[in-house]
This record gives sequence, C-alpha cells and structure tokens, in this order.
Amino acid sequence: MAEEVEEVDEIVDHAISQKRNVKDILVEMKDTSELMVDLAYSALFTNSKDIAEEVQELEQKMDDLRYEIETLLLLAARTPEEAADLSGIMHVAVAAENIADSAEEIADVVLRGVGDHPIYKTMLGEAEEQVVRTKVSSRSELVGKTLGEFRVSTKTGCYIRAIRRGTQWIYNPGKDTKIMEGDILIASGSESSVDVLKELSK
Amino acid sequence: MAEEVEEVDEIVDHAISQKRNVKDILVEMKDTSELMVDLAYSALFTNSKDIAEEVQELEQKMDDLRYEIETLLLLAARTPEEAADLSGIMHVAVAAENIADSAEEIADVVLRGVGDHPIYKTMLGEAEEQVVRTKVSSRSELVGKTLGEFRVSTKTGCYIRAIRRGTQWIYNPGKDTKIMEGDILIASGSESSVDVLKELSK
Repeated sequence: MAEEVEEVDEIVDHAISQKRNVKDILVEMKDTSELMVDLAYSALFTNSKDIAEEVQELEQKMDDLRYEIETLLLLAARTPEEAADLSGIMHVAVAAENIADSAEEIADVVLRGVGDHPIYKTMLGEAEEQVVRTKVSSRSELVGKTLGEFRVSTKTGCYIRAIRRGTQWIYNPGKDTKIMEGDILIASGSESSVDVLKELSK
Repeated sequence: MAEEVEEVDEIVDHAISQKRNVKDILVEMKDTSELMVDLAYSALFTNSKDIAEEVQELEQKMDDLRYEIETLLLLAARTPEEAADLSGIMHVAVAAENIADSAEEIADVVLRGVGDHPIYKTMLGEAEEQVVRTKVSSRSELVGKTLGEFRVSTKTGCYIRAIRRGTQWIYNPGKDTKIMEGDILIASGSESSVDVLKELSK
C-alpha cells in the first residue's frame, strides 16, 4: 500500500515537473520566434549580415527546442484527454518553429547578398534605428557589471534586446543582468548610440 | 522624338510608382505579420476567441497583399539584374506570409477550443496584460475624437495597438488618429484598463 502511494506520488511529481518543463520550453520558443522575426526584418532594413547570422543561430536553437518539447509531450500524455490538450501545445510549438523558419528565410535574403535593394532602406523610414551585434572583450569595462550598475541604456542610448552567451540566450535582459567576457550583445539604437556601445565593448 | 521622350517618361513614372507600391505593400506585410504573431500569442495566453478571430481576418488580408505584391513584382522586372533584386523581395513577401500563416495556426488552436490548457495562463506570467477587441458604437464619446484629444492612453491605461475600420487596418495608431463609429479597437492593458476602454466604446 505504502509502495503504491509512493508510485502515484512519483507519477504526479513527474507529470508536474514535465509540465513545468513544457511550459519553460514553450516560453523559450515564443520568445525566440518573436526575437527572430524582429531581428530578421532589422537585418533586412539595415542589410546587416551580422544580425542575419544571429537569426540563423537562433534557428538552430529552435530546432533543438522543437525536439525537446516533442519528446516531453510524447512522454507526458497518459489519457486521451491529456493527449488532446497536448496536441494543442504541439501545434503551437510547430507554429512557433515555422515562424522561426520564415524569419530565417528573410535572413537568408540578406546573407545571399540580395538584401541591398534600396527599397529596404526606405522601409526603415524615419526611425533610422540600427540593430547591431557586438562582442564584449576581456578588456571591456562592461565585464562583470550589471546593465543597471553601468546604466548601459542611459550612457549609450542603446536598448539591449538580447545577450548570447555561448549557446545560451538571455532575452530582454534586465538591470540585474551581469555582462560577462565574450558575451554577444544584440542591441538597437541610433547610429551614434550603437557606436558608443561598440566602443565600450572593446 | 517628343513622343519617344514621353514614352520613356511614362515608363520611368510607372517604375517609380510601382516601386512605391511594392514598398508600401511590403511595409504592410511586415506590420501585419508582426501584429499577427503578437496577437496570436496573446489570444493563446488569454484564451481569447475574439482576438483569434482578428488573427484570421488579418490572414485574409495577407493573402490579398501577397497576390498584389506578386503581380507588381512580375510587372516590374525589366532586366535580369532587376529580376534578381525583385526575387529577393518576393522571398521576403513569401516569408512574411508564412509567418502570418503560422500565427493563424496558433489562433486556430484557440478557435478549436483546445487553447484553454492551464499552461498558457502560466506563460503569461506576471504581466497579466490582456488584449481585447472592442467595437466603437455610434453613442460612444470616442466617436470623432483623435486618440490624442481624448487622451485614450492616459484615461484608460490601454495601449491601442491597431484599429480595424471595415477591411482597412491602422497599425500603431498615433495621437492624430481619429476614432470613427464602428471602428474595432485592438488594445492591450490590465484587466481594469481594458474594462474602462470597453465601457467608453459603448
């Protein structure tokens, strides 16, 4: 009897932990797909191969997330009702990955060198906001500081949209996010703002 | 001779006006696809069939835009170089439409009634921002006022993300945008903010 209860507990625990993981992965797929669309259009308007490459990186990550969530979902379904619910989640995951694939298609136009048509620059309009990728060197004064401590937005006028740390991504980093050596910052701002940030990252 | 010049002028005028149109349509495809992704995830997190339906409406519009831009691009190419450039634009248009299709897939999960899994609500997180659709009635005090005049954001705490006027869409309306009877407002904000806006639209 005690053993049975333990087994049920284990199943419940397992299900709960899996649900948390499915949620985490789905949140990541959503954030990644949204960032990719944003970066892909930005790459196009500024004809930036750097940013287009980041979109490609993110697409790799989306593929991994898709496999991960599929595995979890296939393990999680225990009843037909659960399976129906989880099939909805699978649909969302597939759609998120398709969004990502399409964003990569846009980045591909830039990487193939057919993204320098004047039409794109005119699409950017008055905003003239640039998106840049810059790597934080070991000598940079940013290393070891949080975004808040250094007041990066105030000092540079840039908005840090994401940080890539090896294969990890931090989306919409907050003022408590610490910058580390080797971090790749994805930031947007005016031409002069992004120049300041680039200089600081050196 | 005079006739020839006129003809050349006409071709040039035509090309210029077409380029403007291609740009306009591409900007609209970009804005629409971005709004659709945003609304699709919002519809999912709040299990809102209203918003999911707006995503479907937008998808219809994207189909039309796709035909329109294809026709223009096919007419515009006059040299192999131009054709190569325009093929890049076609790729972007197709990708934008694929993003839109994927957003509709997410909305479809909501419309099929499999979007009420508790996982989605937890994904919304702390923000608890709602997205609503509300129709401006003839008796509403909003009718005939600009967003700035009525200070809609200040008074309601809502951000008006788009206005649908029949088959027309206005994205990110500004303070000079006038609200008309029958307008469908797509707005986001806290539960109490959106309630205020709904009340004002009546």
